[in-house]
Amino acid sequence: MAGEMQKWVLMATAQTPTNIAVIKYWGKRNEDLILAINDSISVTLDPAHLCTTTTVAVSPTFDQDRMWLNGKEISLLGGRYQNCLREIRSRATDLEDEKQGIKITKKEWEKLHVHIASHNNFPTAAGLASSAAGFACLVFSLAKLMNVKEDQGALSAIARQGSGSACRSLYGGFVKWVMGKEENGSDSIAVQLADEKHWDDLVIVIAVVSSCQKETSSTSGMRDTVETSMLIQHRAKEVVPKRIVQMEDAIKKHDFAAFANLTCADSNQFHAVCLDTYPPIFYMNDTSHKIISCVEKWNRSAGTPQVAYTFDAGPNAVLIARNRKTAAELLQRLLFHFPPNSDTDLNSYVIGDKSILQDAGVQDMKDVEALPPPPEIKDKVPAPKCKGDVSYFICTRPGRGPVLLSDECQALLNPSTGLPK
Amino acid sequence: MAGEMQKWVLMATAQTPTNIAVIKYWGKRNEDLILAINDSISVTLDPAHLCTTTTVAVSPTFDQDRMWLNGKEISLLGGRYQNCLREIRSRATDLEDEKQGIKITKKEWEKLHVHIASHNNFPTAAGLASSAAGFACLVFSLAKLMNVKEDQGALSAIARQGSGSACRSLYGGFVKWVMGKEENGSDSIAVQLADEKHWDDLVIVIAVVSSCQKETSSTSGMRDTVETSMLIQHRAKEVVPKRIVQMEDAIKKHDFAAFANLTCADSNQFHAVCLDTYPPIFYMNDTSHKIISCVEKWNRSAGTPQVAYTFDAGPNAVLIARNRKTAAELLQRLLFHFPPNSDTDLNSYVIGDKSILQDAGVQDMKDVEALPPPPEIKDKVPAPKCKGDVSYFICTRPGRGPVLLSDECQALLNPSTGLPK
Repeated sequence: MAGEMQKWVLMATAQTPTNIAVIKYWGKRNEDLILAINDSISVTLDPAHLCTTTTVAVSPTFDQDRMWLNGKEISLLGGRYQNCLREIRSRATDLEDEKQGIKITKKEWEKLHVHIASHNNFPTAAGLASSAAGFACLVFSLAKLMNVKEDQGALSAIARQGSGSACRSLYGGFVKWVMGKEENGSDSIAVQLADEKHWDDLVIVIAVVSSCQKETSSTSGMRDTVETSMLIQHRAKEVVPKRIVQMEDAIKKHDFAAFANLTCADSNQFHAVCLDTYPPIFYMNDTSHKIISCVEKWNRSAGTPQVAYTFDAGPNAVLIARNRKTAAELLQRLLFHFPPNSDTDLNSYVIGDKSILQDAGVQDMKDVEALPPPPEIKDKVPAPKCKGDVSYFICTRPGRGPVLLSDECQALLNPSTGLPK
Repeated sequence: MAGEMQKWVLMATAQTPTNIAVIKYWGKRNEDLILAINDSISVTLDPAHLCTTTTVAVSPTFDQDRMWLNGKEISLLGGRYQNCLREIRSRATDLEDEKQGIKITKKEWEKLHVHIASHNNFPTAAGLASSAAGFACLVFSLAKLMNVKEDQGALSAIARQGSGSACRSLYGGFVKWVMGKEENGSDSIAVQLADEKHWDDLVIVIAVVSSCQKETSSTSGMRDTVETSMLIQHRAKEVVPKRIVQMEDAIKKHDFAAFANLTCADSNQFHAVCLDTYPPIFYMNDTSHKIISCVEKWNRSAGTPQVAYTFDAGPNAVLIARNRKTAAELLQRLLFHFPPNSDTDLNSYVIGDKSILQDAGVQDMKDVEALPPPPEIKDKVPAPKCKGDVSYFICTRPGRGPVLLSDECQALLNPSTGLPK
C-alpha cells in the first residue's frame, strides 16, 4: 500500500449459521468480556434455512468504520462491535493479494477502516438468535479478510465478546461453550462436540409464535437474574455441570431419550430462573405452553420421547424430532392444533425444508383441515384450534459451521465502491 | 344415650375463612400425614366475602357417614376425609346437652355416624383455595360438636391432614404453618403471628381469571415437583427459611415494602419451581402475566411498592394493596386494563366490599370507559384492552378465624332429619 490514495477495495464474504442451545447459557460472571456462569451446549442449525451472510471490506478510501444490517445503516459505536473490531484488528497479519496487487502489512491494518454489510435470511424480529449468527459472521469474515491466523477456538472467544451465544456459531453440528476459568476470558471458547453428520436423523421444526408482548432483552434479563434470583447460582453450580456431562454422553451415543429429557428440562429450568427474577421475566406465552403440552402428551403416550422442545428468550418453540418420520408426524400435530389463518398461504406458513410437509401428506389447506386429531388426544374433548397463534413454521436440521463464499455475486458490498449493492 | 333407637339430631354449624399464602407451601415430606418441606405464612381472608359454612350432625338414626358439598352428595371414602374424621372422633369427650336431654360418652362417639353439609360462598371452581376453608371448617365444626378439648393448634394439625393449607385457616389475621420436625406430624401446626386487627390498612383485590386450561391438581403437582425439580430442595432449605424470618418481621413492623417484595418474589419462585418440574406445570397464563406487569410498572414508577401480588395453583391474582386509597387506584387500573364484557353487569363484575368501587369513583360502565390510562403508562403506546380476560373481581381484606354460628337458621342440615335443608 503506497502513501497516495488508492482506489482498491478488498472484500470477504462469509455465511454463518445460527444455533439453538439445548443446555442454556443464562448469566454472566463478567459483563464486558461476556463470560458465562456455566457451560452450554447447542445444535447448529442448517444455514440453508437460517443464517447470516456478511461481507466485510477495507479500502484506503473509507474514512470510517460503517455497517449495514439488512440494508439499513446501524451504529458501530456499541462496545460489543468495538470489542470485536479491536480484537480482530490486533490479530491481523501481513497480506498480499496478488490478483489485485495489494499488500497490507500488520501495522497498516490498524489504520484501515472497514465496511460491513450483513443480512439474515430470516426475519430479525422473529427472535431467532440473529445476534449469534451475526457476530459469528462478523468475526469470521473479518478474520478471513485480515488474514488472522488464529484457530476457530480463538475466533469463538472474539465472537463471544459480541454476543455470548455467537461463539457457538463458529462450528457446525453439536457445540459446547466452555465457560473457562481465566479472568481475561481466553479459555472461554467454543469447541465442537460432533459435526453435523454425526447425528443426521434429527429434524428441527421451529414454531414462530405470534406475540405482541415486548420482550426483555436477554442482556438485561440475565443481568437481572444474576442479581435477584435465589435459584440461579444453584442452577449454574449444581445442576448444569451434571447436565453438561449427561448431554455430551447423549449426543455421543445418539441417545434421543436422554437428549430430549435433558433438552426439555433445561429449557424449563432456564424459564424457571427467569420467573424467579425480580421483577419476573416471562418469555413463554400461552401458545408456548400449548406447544409444550402437545409434545408432552405425545411423548408420554409414545412411552419414549419423540420430540424435544426448547425455548430461548422469546415465545418461539424449537422442536427437535428424532427422525424424519417423527418430524412429519410432529408437523401434522402442529398443523392440527395451530392451523394457518384462512387467508394465509400454506406455502408461506411452512417454510424451510418443505419435504417434511410432503412427508406429512399435506399439500394444501384442504389437507390441513382434514388432519385427524392425534391418537393421544382422540378420546378427550378436543381443544379449540388456535388459528393465528403461530406466525409460521420453519423446517430445518442440524447444519454446518461458517463458510467463506468465494462467488462475488453473493457479496453484499459493491466491489468498486465498498457500499451496499 | 339409651340403647333403643332415639330420634334426636345434634348439630353444630361453623364458618371458616380461606387464606392466601404469602410465603408458599409447595412440597410434602410425608404424603399421608401432609407434612410440608418448608414453613409457610398466609393472610386469612375476610369470611364475609370468602368462606365455607359447614353444619355437622350426629344422630343414632344415621346409618353411615355422609357429606354434601354445595348441595351435592360426595364420597367420604377418601383418605383425607377419613383421617380427619378418625382424628377428631378419637379426641371426642363426654357431652351433655341439657336442652335436648342428650348424653354422649367418649366411647359412644366412636359408633355415631355424622352428616356433613358444606357450602362455599364463592364458586368452588374458581380456584380460590376452597379445600383449605373446607377442611378447616369440617374439623372445627366436628371438634365443637364432639366436645373436643384440644386447642386450636392441635385442631390445625388435624385439618392439615385434610388439606395442608387448611391448617392455616384455623386462625384469623397472619398465620404461620410451622413445618415441624416430628415424624408423626404432631408439631406440624399453625400458629397465629398477628390477628386481623394488627394490620387493618391492607385491602385485598382478587382477580378471578378466565381460563379454559385444565389445571394440574396441587396434590399431584407438588408431588411431581418434589420428585423431579432440581431447584425445589434449594428453595425449601436455603431460600424459604430466610424469607420466613423476614416476612414475620415485615408483618410485625407493618413494613409494606418488605411485605410486598417478599410476597411477590415468593409467588414467582413457587411458579418457577412448578416450571422446573417435569413435565412442567403452568398455573399462570398470559392474563396473570399482564396483571403482574401492570403492578410491577406501577410499583416501579411509585418508587416503593403500592401493591403485592401472589398466585396460587391457578391463574387468579390475589393483589394486596397497602391501604384503601391504593386499593381504589388499583381497581381503577384493573378496570382500565380488564374492562368487563359489554354484556356484563358491573355489579356482578366487582363483588365483595363494594365500597372500594365507590372510592374508585366508578358507578357504571360509563365510568369504566372514561377511566384514563394510569400515569405510569401515559406516554407509552397503550396496550390493547383485555375484555373477558378476567371473570370478576372480589374486594376483601384480612379477616377473622373460624366461628361457631349459633343461629339455627344458618345451619345447612334440617334439625329434625339431619338431611340437607
